[in-house]
Amino acid sequence: MKRGLLIVVSGPSGCGKGTVLGSIVEEMGLCYSVSATTRSMREGEVDGVNYHYLTEEQFETLIAENKVLEYTTYCGNYYGTLRDEVEERRNNGQDVLLEIEVVGAANVKRLCPDAVLIFIAPPSVGELERRLRKRGTETDDVIASRVAEAEREIHCASQYDYLVVNGALEKAVSDVRSIINAERISASNKDEIISEVLNS
Amino acid sequence: MKRGLLIVVSGPSGCGKGTVLGSIVEEMGLCYSVSATTRSMREGEVDGVNYHYLTEEQFETLIAENKVLEYTTYCGNYYGTLRDEVEERRNNGQDVLLEIEVVGAANVKRLCPDAVLIFIAPPSVGELERRLRKRGTETDDVIASRVAEAEREIHCASQYDYLVVNGALEKAVSDVRSIINAERISASNKDEIISEVLNS
Repeated sequence: MKRGLLIVVSGPSGCGKGTVLGSIVEEMGLCYSVSATTRSMREGEVDGVNYHYLTEEQFETLIAENKVLEYTTYCGNYYGTLRDEVEERRNNGQDVLLEIEVVGAANVKRLCPDAVLIFIAPPSVGELERRLRKRGTETDDVIASRVAEAEREIHCASQYDYLVVNGALEKAVSDVRSIINAERISASNKDEIISEVLNS
Repeated sequence: MKRGLLIVVSGPSGCGKGTVLGSIVEEMGLCYSVSATTRSMREGEVDGVNYHYLTEEQFETLIAENKVLEYTTYCGNYYGTLRDEVEERRNNGQDVLLEIEVVGAANVKRLCPDAVLIFIAPPSVGELERRLRKRGTETDDVIASRVAEAEREIHCASQYDYLVVNGALEKAVSDVRSIINAERISASNKDEIISEVLNS
């Protein structure tokens, strides 16, 4: 069984990350991991399907044991990605996709050096601002803070394995597709393939 | 100016390497380097266009100085790739393609660790033999020796960055295209791109 890839994608809000990934997740057979959280289970939610539900003590113990690849807090609750969850999927040959911000991505790379880090950038900060305004859902203050946050994130893009500029959507989709395809070939078990070629 | 890639492709005779590369060289704007040789210039040939013509002493001095990336001898003459020739093209932003055998490829990787090594394998040795027979140009002895040579080369494929199996031509072409595209993105000057995104 070939071990799956761990693909980490970051990019500022408004860079078109969701649209790019939406075009390839199903086509390329990528999967998302189920996150862990300390917030209470809501009606209709199922443990292990919507989230892995943990107590704060459990979550913090896992963090201390380097068993949480990345996490964040929101409204007083932890949300994060469990190392065992990701490892199990990869060992089953699944390519796991994480959409996370830059601090989390750096932590994943520290704990899983073979993770493939892709940063999706807007063609320019001006264009990002236009895209955010076009949505028409945010106040000027929120947009200004989003733009400042985007600039901070874009500075971190040099730490990524790949930097894809999303100017034209089709080109960005094709670039991400190429990266994942090339990483799959690079990570394939060469000895196994060689043995198949020689003995079949 | 972005520095170009050095792409090294190997694969046994009959693996379809020429057909695969023929489909992408022009489309992707790759270039071949001009080889050096110690054989005499023939009528109509131009120094620096067909080959760089060198004396045996010149060639051997360059080998001793690690200025020949890879070479072979044929009918008592040297044929090889000059490091300066490749460096100049790469510094001009050109992606240079070398089609060479496995010993030469290992030598290129030693002298240029950032070279991208791609091995193209037939789906099976049996299929390779069928393809060689289909050409109808070789005796059984020649085919047997080609197959033995192919097996020796395929064993070396584990040393390559990428192993592409040429079962269906379109798939192999698409794989090599992905690899070169991903390597271009990976090798791009991230700081320059970040600065463009932030300041435009």
